[in-house]
Amino acid sequence: MAQKHTTRAEDYSKWYNELVYRADLAEHSDVRGCMVIKPYGYAIWEKMRDILDAKFKETGHSNAYFPLFIPKSYLSKEASHVDGFAKECAVVTHYRLKNAEDGSGVVVDPTAKLEEELIVRPTSETIIWNSYKNWIQSYRDLPILINQWANVVRWEMRTRLFLRTAEFLWQEGHTAHATKEEAIKEAELMLDVYADFAENYMAMPVIKGRKTESERFAGADDTLCIEAMMQDGKALQAGTSHFLGQNFAKAFEVKYADKEGKLEYVWATSWGVSTRLMGALIMTHSDDEGLVLPPALAPIQVVAVPIHRSDEELLAINAKFEELGKKLKALGISFKYDNDENKRPGWKFAEYESKGIPVRLAMGPRDLENGKVELARRDTKTKDVIDFEGIESFIQKLLSEIQMNLLDKAKKFRSENMQSVESYEDFKSQIDKGGFFLAHWDGTKETEAKIKEETQATIRCIILDQPEEEGKCMVTGNPSKQRVVFAKAY
Amino acid sequence: MAQKHTTRAEDYSKWYNELVYRADLAEHSDVRGCMVIKPYGYAIWEKMRDILDAKFKETGHSNAYFPLFIPKSYLSKEASHVDGFAKECAVVTHYRLKNAEDGSGVVVDPTAKLEEELIVRPTSETIIWNSYKNWIQSYRDLPILINQWANVVRWEMRTRLFLRTAEFLWQEGHTAHATKEEAIKEAELMLDVYADFAENYMAMPVIKGRKTESERFAGADDTLCIEAMMQDGKALQAGTSHFLGQNFAKAFEVKYADKEGKLEYVWATSWGVSTRLMGALIMTHSDDEGLVLPPALAPIQVVAVPIHRSDEELLAINAKFEELGKKLKALGISFKYDNDENKRPGWKFAEYESKGIPVRLAMGPRDLENGKVELARRDTKTKDVIDFEGIESFIQKLLSEIQMNLLDKAKKFRSENMQSVESYEDFKSQIDKGGFFLAHWDGTKETEAKIKEETQATIRCIILDQPEEEGKCMVTGNPSKQRVVFAKAY
Repeated sequence: MAQKHTTRAEDYSKWYNELVYRADLAEHSDVRGCMVIKPYGYAIWEKMRDILDAKFKETGHSNAYFPLFIPKSYLSKEASHVDGFAKECAVVTHYRLKNAEDGSGVVVDPTAKLEEELIVRPTSETIIWNSYKNWIQSYRDLPILINQWANVVRWEMRTRLFLRTAEFLWQEGHTAHATKEEAIKEAELMLDVYADFAENYMAMPVIKGRKTESERFAGADDTLCIEAMMQDGKALQAGTSHFLGQNFAKAFEVKYADKEGKLEYVWATSWGVSTRLMGALIMTHSDDEGLVLPPALAPIQVVAVPIHRSDEELLAINAKFEELGKKLKALGISFKYDNDENKRPGWKFAEYESKGIPVRLAMGPRDLENGKVELARRDTKTKDVIDFEGIESFIQKLLSEIQMNLLDKAKKFRSENMQSVESYEDFKSQIDKGGFFLAHWDGTKETEAKIKEETQATIRCIILDQPEEEGKCMVTGNPSKQRVVFAKAY
Repeated sequence: MAQKHTTRAEDYSKWYNELVYRADLAEHSDVRGCMVIKPYGYAIWEKMRDILDAKFKETGHSNAYFPLFIPKSYLSKEASHVDGFAKECAVVTHYRLKNAEDGSGVVVDPTAKLEEELIVRPTSETIIWNSYKNWIQSYRDLPILINQWANVVRWEMRTRLFLRTAEFLWQEGHTAHATKEEAIKEAELMLDVYADFAENYMAMPVIKGRKTESERFAGADDTLCIEAMMQDGKALQAGTSHFLGQNFAKAFEVKYADKEGKLEYVWATSWGVSTRLMGALIMTHSDDEGLVLPPALAPIQVVAVPIHRSDEELLAINAKFEELGKKLKALGISFKYDNDENKRPGWKFAEYESKGIPVRLAMGPRDLENGKVELARRDTKTKDVIDFEGIESFIQKLLSEIQMNLLDKAKKFRSENMQSVESYEDFKSQIDKGGFFLAHWDGTKETEAKIKEETQATIRCIILDQPEEEGKCMVTGNPSKQRVVFAKAY
C-alpha cells in the first residue's frame, strides 16, 4: 500500500524535494525560480513569523513597509553594496501593456518605457536609508528600530524549494543609532534573538559566529550569523545580523546633530531571516517517513483518528475526542479530529506521519471499552496504549518532552559530526563525508580562497566568545589565534 | 504655539494629505506612486489585518503564498480580465544589471533579456488558477478556500496616500467550488465578513450592494461590494467580493470529476480589501485636529501624561500610572505612559490628538492630592476630572461607548447625506454638494454612461435585499424596478 519514497541515504537531495511535495509544504510554480507556498507550509511559516514578530516587538522594534521597487541608481550609491547585489535582479523597464495588433494577446507598450529602470528589491537598505535621511535630524530622532516583513527577489538560476528561490519571504530589520557601540549592541542582540528562536522553537542548535571579510554582507562592516548543521552534514546559514557602520549613512548623507549640535553620520544595522528557515527546519528533524515538526511550530500538535466498524462505535468515539478537543484547546494545544469517512485509518496515519504531526491518537472499539487510547509519537515512532482519563495533561508534558528530545537529538548529531582537524591533508580526506571542521586558519583571503577552490568548503564563521587558542594554519602553517568552522554549505 | 492646519472646510483633499503626514501614518517615497507606510500607520494596518485574518480562518480559510510575477501570456487567457487589467502594469523585462563601462554606476545587461516578460501581479487570479489546475481532480479536492496577504502593483499616474497608490498591500481570497450555488454563497459570506468588519471595528457604516455590469471586476459574473460615505460626501468602495462563475476555470482548463465521474468546470470566487481601508478609516472619523481612531483599531487606546514641577511629584505620578498600566493590560487595553522629560505636556497633548488616541489622561499635583485624574475623549473632545480609583473599569466601558458613538455619528452623517431624487434636473443640481442619491435607473449601460459623463457620478451599487419599487428612470423615463445608489467616488 505505502508508496516507496526516496530515503536520505539513497539521495538526500531527492528525499528533500519529495518530502516538500509529500508534506504539502510548497511546489514550484510555472514562473522560473518562484515557489507556491501551500497552506500547510504557510501555516508553519506563519507560526515562525508570529513568534519572531513578538520577539522583535518585545525588544522595542516596530513594523513598517517600504516600496517594492528601488530606483536603479540607488543601488550604486553604496559601492560595495552594488558589487554584492546589483547583478542578478528583476528589472522593471516598462509600465504598460497593450493589445497586440494581430489579436494574439498582449505586448509591452514601447512608448511606456520608464526613464529610470526600477529594481525589484533584493534587500532594502538603499530605499530605507533614502527615507531615514528625511526622518533623522537630531539625536532625539534616534534610535530608529524598524522591521519589515516583505517579499524580495534575487534572480537565481538553480533554485530549490525554500532554500534558494528567486522570490522569497523574509523580515529585514533596519536600525539607525547615534553611536557605534549602540549599533554593535543591537546587531548582537538580534543575533541572540535569532539563536534563541532557532534553539527554543525550531529545536535547531546553532553556532553564533562572525563571517570572514569575504563572506560578509555587501555593505557591512561586520556580519554576525547563526550556522546550523543539516542531517547530511552540510551547514546552513540560518540568519544574519549586520553592523553596517556608517556606510549607508554616508552613501545617503544621513547625519544627526548630537547634543552639542555637531553633525555626525548615523550608525546602522540590518538583520534578517527568511523562508529559508523552512528548509532548515525540514532538514534538521525529518526522517525517511516524512516531516518531523517540533511541537512549538506545528500548526496541528495532536491529531486523533477513530477506528470503527459501526456508526454506533463512531458516535461513541466522536464523543470522546470532542471532549478531549475542548480540554486540549483550554491548554492551548492545537488539535485536529479526523473522522472523515472517505479515508481509511491507514491512509490517515501515513498522511499525518508525512506531515510531521507530533502526536497521533487512535481509538478503536476495544480501547473505547477499556478507557484506553493508542498514542504514537512522531519523533521516536513509538506507540503506547494509555489511559484516556487525564490524557490531556499527559499530552501537555509529552509535547515539551518531544520539543526537548528533538533539540537533544539535533545537538547530539551535531557534536558527532563536528571535529577538530590539524592538517590540510586530513581536512581534504574528510571534508566530503560532511560535518563541521574546526581548524586553524591564518586569517588571509588567499588561504580561504584556496581552500574553497580545492574543497568547496567555506569558513562558515569565526565562533563568538571562543577562548583563544594558539595554533598554526592548516594550509600555510602561519600563526593563528583561534580555530574557525569549515563546512560545505547550502 | 499650535501650527495652523488646513481644515476640512477649507480644502478637504489638502486636509487629508496633511493629516496623513501629521499623524505619521505614511509618506510618499521617491519611487513614483509608491508609499512608505510608517510604523504608526502600519500598526493600525496590522490590527486590521489580524482581525480580518482571524475572521477568514473562522470561516474556514487558510493562507498561502503565490508568486509575485505573472507570465505575460497568462493575462490574456481570460479575455475580459485582460481588458480590465493588462494595461497599467509593472513589466519585468530583464534579470541582470552590470557595471557601466564608464564607471558611472550600473546599467541593464542587454544579454539578460527574459524570453517572456513577467508582470508584477496587479491581482492573482491567473497565477492562482494556473496552480489550482494541478490541485483539483475530483469533487473530493473541493472546496479550496485560500487567502493571500500580499503586495500588488497597478501603475497609477495620479496617486494619493492609501487611496490610490501604485503598490499597495491587500488580501485576496481565491476559492474553488463544485457548484454555482456554493460559490455564490461564499461570495456573499465574505461580503458579510467585510461589512461586519467595517461596521464593528472601523465604526464605518457600509451599504452592501451589487455592481452594475460596467462597474464589475474584469472576469467576474457578479461583483458584490461595500460602499462607505466619506465626510466630503463622496463614496469609497471599501471591499469587493466577486462571483467569477466558471470564467477562470475555463481559461485555465480546471475541471473536476463529480461523484458520477463526470467532468465539470470548477466555480470560483475572489474577494479583497486593501490598505485603501486606511484612507476610508481616516476620512470617516477624523476632524480638523487630526486623526480620530475607533478604539477597536487604535494601537494605543489610552495615553497618560504627567504634569509636574518637581521630581518628587513626577515619581508619585509615575507610580500611579504604572499601577494603572498593569490594570489596563490585564483588561486587554493598550496603554502608553509618556513621561518623556524632553517634551512639554502641551506638545504631547497636540501630538496624541493628531494621532487619534481615543482616551488621554493627565495628572497634576492637585489631582494627585485629591485622588483625581483628567480624562479627555478624542471623539467628543470633552474633558472631565474623575476619581482615579476604579478608573480602569470606567475606561473599559468608555472605550465601548466611544466605539459606538463613532459608528452612530457616521451613520447619522450618512443618513443626513443620503436622499431620494426623482428628476435628472434635481440630481444634476444637487450632485456637486456630495452625498448618496437614490434614484431610478433604466438598467442600460447607455444611461449609466451618460450620467457619468455629464455629472462624474457613478452607480455605486444596486442595494442588496432592497424591496422592489416600481418607478421611472430619472433620465429616460423608462420603467425601473428599484432605486440604485449614485455618488461621486474615490
